Amino acid sequence: MCTMSVEKWGLFEVELTGPTEGNPFVDVQLSAEFKNGDTTIKAPGFYDGDGTYKIRFMPSVEGEWSYASKSDSSALDGQTGSFTCTAPAEGNHGPVRVRNQHHFGYEDGTSYFSFGTTCYAWVHQGDALEEQTLKTLETAGFNKLRMCVFPKDYIFNKNEPEYYPFEKQGDGWDFSRYDIAFFHHLEKRVAELGALGIEADIILFHPYDRWGYAKMAHEEDYAYLRYVVARLAAYRHVWWSLANEYDFMLKDKPMEVWDHFFEIVQENDPYDHLRSIHNGNVTMNYDHTKPGVTHVCVQNWDVKRMREWRDAYGKPVIDDECEYEGNILRNWGNITARELVHRYWICIVYGGYAGHGETYEHPEDILWWSKGGVLVGESWPRLKFLRGIVEEGPAEGIEPFAGSFPWGRTAGGGCGNYRLIYFGEHQPKRFGNGLPEEGRYEADVIDTWEMTVETLGTFEGQEPIELPGRPGLALRIRPVEG
Amino acid sequence: MCTMSVEKWGLFEVELTGPTEGNPFVDVQLSAEFKNGDTTIKAPGFYDGDGTYKIRFMPSVEGEWSYASKSDSSALDGQTGSFTCTAPAEGNHGPVRVRNQHHFGYEDGTSYFSFGTTCYAWVHQGDALEEQTLKTLETAGFNKLRMCVFPKDYIFNKNEPEYYPFEKQGDGWDFSRYDIAFFHHLEKRVAELGALGIEADIILFHPYDRWGYAKMAHEEDYAYLRYVVARLAAYRHVWWSLANEYDFMLKDKPMEVWDHFFEIVQENDPYDHLRSIHNGNVTMNYDHTKPGVTHVCVQNWDVKRMREWRDAYGKPVIDDECEYEGNILRNWGNITARELVHRYWICIVYGGYAGHGETYEHPEDILWWSKGGVLVGESWPRLKFLRGIVEEGPAEGIEPFAGSFPWGRTAGGGCGNYRLIYFGEHQPKRFGNGLPEEGRYEADVIDTWEMTVETLGTFEGQEPIELPGRPGLALRIRPVEG
Repeated sequence: MCTMSVEKWGLFEVELTGPTEGNPFVDVQLSAEFKNGDTTIKAPGFYDGDGTYKIRFMPSVEGEWSYASKSDSSALDGQTGSFTCTAPAEGNHGPVRVRNQHHFGYEDGTSYFSFGTTCYAWVHQGDALEEQTLKTLETAGFNKLRMCVFPKDYIFNKNEPEYYPFEKQGDGWDFSRYDIAFFHHLEKRVAELGALGIEADIILFHPYDRWGYAKMAHEEDYAYLRYVVARLAAYRHVWWSLANEYDFMLKDKPMEVWDHFFEIVQENDPYDHLRSIHNGNVTMNYDHTKPGVTHVCVQNWDVKRMREWRDAYGKPVIDDECEYEGNILRNWGNITARELVHRYWICIVYGGYAGHGETYEHPEDILWWSKGGVLVGESWPRLKFLRGIVEEGPAEGIEPFAGSFPWGRTAGGGCGNYRLIYFGEHQPKRFGNGLPEEGRYEADVIDTWEMTVETLGTFEGQEPIELPGRPGLALRIRPVEG
Repeated sequence: MCTMSVEKWGLFEVELTGPTEGNPFVDVQLSAEFKNGDTTIKAPGFYDGDGTYKIRFMPSVEGEWSYASKSDSSALDGQTGSFTCTAPAEGNHGPVRVRNQHHFGYEDGTSYFSFGTTCYAWVHQGDALEEQTLKTLETAGFNKLRMCVFPKDYIFNKNEPEYYPFEKQGDGWDFSRYDIAFFHHLEKRVAELGALGIEADIILFHPYDRWGYAKMAHEEDYAYLRYVVARLAAYRHVWWSLANEYDFMLKDKPMEVWDHFFEIVQENDPYDHLRSIHNGNVTMNYDHTKPGVTHVCVQNWDVKRMREWRDAYGKPVIDDECEYEGNILRNWGNITARELVHRYWICIVYGGYAGHGETYEHPEDILWWSKGGVLVGESWPRLKFLRGIVEEGPAEGIEPFAGSFPWGRTAGGGCGNYRLIYFGEHQPKRFGNGLPEEGRYEADVIDTWEMTVETLGTFEGQEPIELPGRPGLALRIRPVEG
């Protein structure tokens, strides 16, 4: 007898054969209970076409697990089995969780500092471009990707996708029947991100649509959510983003519907993956204090407000659209690389996180922000450099300094005697604020654009430190060891 | 018999001889009524030392004027005379007034677009430096100067002034006796600014003081205000700034005292010169809706809020301290030249005005922002260039476009079919928002740093205009003539 095994936080899949008549997506209820000692976890199953049903499970405890299926179809009910959950492989740190109130960490305790980018519709571009996107992501330095389930209809996005999420019905769609090829393809791409160590920030709804997916009936939305969650929740690197720009869909999906979406996702995801939602208009932040929201997503160019959002919501904040590097006509997509690097640093030093995107005009409309492909801008290597700086810093993450003077003008934060002060458009020849009051410390000046770190020596007391006096610099203070 | 004459908005001065006993500053009341036809204006007089009393008057109507003095001293009472008010000389446009709600204009109807700089304590630096400052101002392109009456004690400002505003009394001062040499010197410098066409934005109080001038009794403050106003109000180019950073003085001068200062200035100034007051902390804007305030002064780095201030106060707004170009350790004084030019453009295009200052470290602590001298930075020629752009534009001034998208991200404003769109950190390759719906227009791209204007041709309709796609550009739209 061969014992099946799966690594901790890996994906274990039970495959069953069941009824094909009627509409199995609607007619058949399926789940399974997975047990390890006192732990019992109920995981939802789903129909995978051609009489195949699946239940996916992500074990988070090593050792022996058993399971038993439950279904209103006798062919699927009471199926049992067992497997061994082994130690996680190298590089597998489990799902990302909220940690230290305003920060994140992997479940195994490893720090996770979110450096995300955006390729909304990358899984709808065909294999050649999608594989190029993966190749780019392999070395780009990002560890999260915002991506939509549904294809995108928008400026620069007029191409038809290869797959559609629902089965065709005449000229339209049967919103109660999911297209299996679509989801197999989606899952393949999601899994490939996981293999690269990139969290998949799955956007479940968005307004940019010509197929009708943005205007389904609420019950169809609910069923779709349950189906997607049943399929994807066992991937440890999945995050749920309820929407891109939910506020542009309020006419069809009023606020209470969004609230209910959060409930459905939370109820159907046994692993409690991170959940948030992304606004369009800067005045329309979702009420991220709601209990179903694990962390804050905002779209806002005004990154100096980061501390305000942290305080208002008391959760980790990602400004995942602080405008994109690019040159298109829309002003959310035409800031300079320097400006994006600048905004990113401000978010980080103020104790938050930011998001990257690239929107340069392209002769074939292949813009990274939506379709992926290659990165042509200049911000991404600087953000990779910044990620390195942050990962060398305190594991707990950076907490911003309080107060309006000087920290409303110059971004400063730290953790213990570790300090990171980002001057940006300020170019002091010397600086004394925010230095530790006691102890001996080492000061480095970081050129955020040139990506250099220059050690200024060691210091004691709060005498102002001499600086080069040019823009785009940061000052890093670390206690001298020993 | 010789008839005296003075140009319209010129300074006519009546000089009388009166009592020297006691304290003439306190003991003697003096004023005069000036009449021209139905117009009667009462102007305050003041003691000018050595038994000399003066009444200054700025006529704003051409023709024959007569006057009669009033005093509780018989030697000064009932003195009469007459003079002719002639047409204003070239370059004399009268005092600056509020116009078109959010803008300014000279009394003769000429537009006045405020491009101010700051030399707080320049009149306290001795003749050599003061004359150098005037020489610099002659060609620097600024048309307003923020300057304090009192000397300044602060970082970089430890030198003693040559003159003090009050007579010495033992180790201290007699706050009821003004130093005549001090005021003669002040007036000379004020007059020299006038000759350069520069408005003197006279700061009446400020907190940076080691002599006790910031902590006089309220009655002493009131008397000082009446004296300064009596001396200076007849200079057509004087503006009253009640304070630099009034909020840092609230412990000694609570809010009702500031309100009363406004009343005193207003009551004693027959010409109703512009009046405002400057905050220190960004949360402490004065309530500029108060009726004595003619225009808004704010200190705020966050210039993208300009439209908010315009709306909140309904008056012209000058962000006269949006941080200074420089490299000193304080972060209000170390932004790059590019950043200051950027902020200035944003203020202008959003229908407001801004202020310049320079704070570069100097081996002898001669920083322009306080002491004057020479300009060493790179923003001032760009602001002069911007002033030229604005003066070529609509006489009524620029009104900002409303709404958050796209105008919360990209500054845009105009007047009729004249449009000025400032992209700043945005670098679109084409742009279509804010173009006139009808008519044929000419489009120019302005490089705000390189100070170039390139004509892109003429356009019709709202097709996006192609742009160079680099930062720091503005787009100017003007109707094609004829």
